Amino acid sequence: MLSVSYLQEYLTGLFVNIGCSFADAQVVTQSILEAELRGLDAYGVVYVERYYELIRAKRINLKPEMRVLYQTPSTATLEADAALGPLAAKRGMEIAIEKATTAGTGWVAVRGSNHFGVAAYYSMLAIEKDMVGVAMTNSEPLVAAINGTTRMLGTNPVSVAFPAQKHPHLVFDFSTVPFSQGKLEKLPHPLPNSIVQDAMGQPANNAATLKRGGAMLPLGGDVAHGGHKGFCVGALVDIFSALFSGANFGPFVPPPFAYLPILTNPVGKGVGHFFGALRIDAFRPAAEFRAAVDEWIDTFRNAPGREGTPGIRIPGAAEHLLRTQRLKQGLELSSDALRSINKVAKALHYSAITQ
Amino acid sequence: MLSVSYLQEYLTGLFVNIGCSFADAQVVTQSILEAELRGLDAYGVVYVERYYELIRAKRINLKPEMRVLYQTPSTATLEADAALGPLAAKRGMEIAIEKATTAGTGWVAVRGSNHFGVAAYYSMLAIEKDMVGVAMTNSEPLVAAINGTTRMLGTNPVSVAFPAQKHPHLVFDFSTVPFSQGKLEKLPHPLPNSIVQDAMGQPANNAATLKRGGAMLPLGGDVAHGGHKGFCVGALVDIFSALFSGANFGPFVPPPFAYLPILTNPVGKGVGHFFGALRIDAFRPAAEFRAAVDEWIDTFRNAPGREGTPGIRIPGAAEHLLRTQRLKQGLELSSDALRSINKVAKALHYSAITQ
Repeated sequence: MLSVSYLQEYLTGLFVNIGCSFADAQVVTQSILEAELRGLDAYGVVYVERYYELIRAKRINLKPEMRVLYQTPSTATLEADAALGPLAAKRGMEIAIEKATTAGTGWVAVRGSNHFGVAAYYSMLAIEKDMVGVAMTNSEPLVAAINGTTRMLGTNPVSVAFPAQKHPHLVFDFSTVPFSQGKLEKLPHPLPNSIVQDAMGQPANNAATLKRGGAMLPLGGDVAHGGHKGFCVGALVDIFSALFSGANFGPFVPPPFAYLPILTNPVGKGVGHFFGALRIDAFRPAAEFRAAVDEWIDTFRNAPGREGTPGIRIPGAAEHLLRTQRLKQGLELSSDALRSINKVAKALHYSAITQ
Repeated sequence: MLSVSYLQEYLTGLFVNIGCSFADAQVVTQSILEAELRGLDAYGVVYVERYYELIRAKRINLKPEMRVLYQTPSTATLEADAALGPLAAKRGMEIAIEKATTAGTGWVAVRGSNHFGVAAYYSMLAIEKDMVGVAMTNSEPLVAAINGTTRMLGTNPVSVAFPAQKHPHLVFDFSTVPFSQGKLEKLPHPLPNSIVQDAMGQPANNAATLKRGGAMLPLGGDVAHGGHKGFCVGALVDIFSALFSGANFGPFVPPPFAYLPILTNPVGKGVGHFFGALRIDAFRPAAEFRAAVDEWIDTFRNAPGREGTPGIRIPGAAEHLLRTQRLKQGLELSSDALRSINKVAKALHYSAITQ
């Protein structure tokens, strides 16, 4: 077990050694640890090495000159200049919050960014200001369109965070596919028809097909389960992330892996994100809004559950519980994760991490 | 076949006879015909009789005093005073567009409304102003939450419309369930496991279970197909529609049928909607944005399709084609639809409609 404060200090130091400013290193570390706290290991410490390799490959710029390209009272377009994703994303969300303070809402499109980690880290920044936070990003193509054979969309996550009063805040955070790649591999096989397909676009029931040119299907899976509407959800995240900002869209989004080549025909700049902040008191008295969120949570939590199940789950409640527990007890990193961090540490002559 | 202009005139006259002002009657008729044009009969002329019955039951108010309760430069909350849904919704979208003109974006939450028909009618109003339009609504409960047995959410549709340049505009318009009730009943049976469930929350494969206390499952269906994430999408539409405005949420949303009782314990006012308008030139030069929308469409349309399928469908393209065709050739109404209209006409001593 490693305490979160130890990890925060250790990783901040590591990112400083990689070349980040102290403040930047802190933010990147926070974003990585937020993923771990919420049980989303796939966006957690495994990104230390990925970011490091992308920096070495000069695909991430440690001295970015981020600048606002266009703006109105409630909007801005941010050129992130190939910054580390969490830095670009946090700056984007901060501008959205700033705009909302005066205009009621703020909406920021970001281009030229990289993988930003866990979306909830950004949406939750708005909650502290009595705002609803919206965060989304596109990501490297893994998902087929209905009737298509190639990878056209990323797993394109969305997070929306609503401030509650007596309950933990209501935090939605989900990718727009049935399961992330990491989870797919851990599911009992054969997989149900059809949430993945092979390289010919035929239904497949094994996650290994993804390594042979196959693709995930959108949220819903096949058309019989509404996958054509799930495709719409993923496509909307792609369009909001890329077309407002001028980032790459769909099949052109660059991968967060230095060993994979970048397309030579980009249609935009880097990865795209989209952020929103909505002042709750812009719409109704803040206390009323928060009470309504509580009432919504109570209504769903107290509704009758199917026998043999734990009943209806409130989005984000399990993650909140895990987060509280892990903040107290610390994090248990996998041996793979430790090995990956230590590889970077060794290359930089930085102290090793042990559990 | 009935020409659209004849139907527009006939139905406007009918709504005037029901008690609407001429201008209001025109808007309600347009919204109904837009649904028919796009092939969404379920939101089309069948609503003539439903609206009429709701008006007779005093659940729709023909002389509403709509007023803005709260506002900021980019937001407004509209109390619709039990207006006809299309009137409340159009007013909401118009305010969003007005706000966007000066603030870059506009966001309007509406409460005290009724069923608004087809969401694309409102999102597309923004396109004419070089804006992206967003329209969503909650609706009467038909959908279970994962692990729940009762109906907790409506089919909660969303529409987002993006202006293109050379292509028809890119118009997303989808309900957040695998299939609407009307489509479910027409699907070949048995239905796939599991997009509907029985009153005990057990998987069912027949749409008839909905008449025996069953429920639809969210977009995605069961958890194996990502239904837990589909639930998040439907819940977000519910929360945006109800909690910003103070409308009823989830299981409390009033049904658009006068013969069904209204809950005696409402948690808010009427049906809720949420609208957004985003000036595209707030984010980047408008021509650039439109060209990017074209490029997105080309990329998806030209991607390789699975053998034996027509390839990837662009959201809204089929509806656009149908709309163009029907505008030219006219609409063929079902005998049920004609009978329903004539029932209202007869009660009002208004001329009958024939095909």
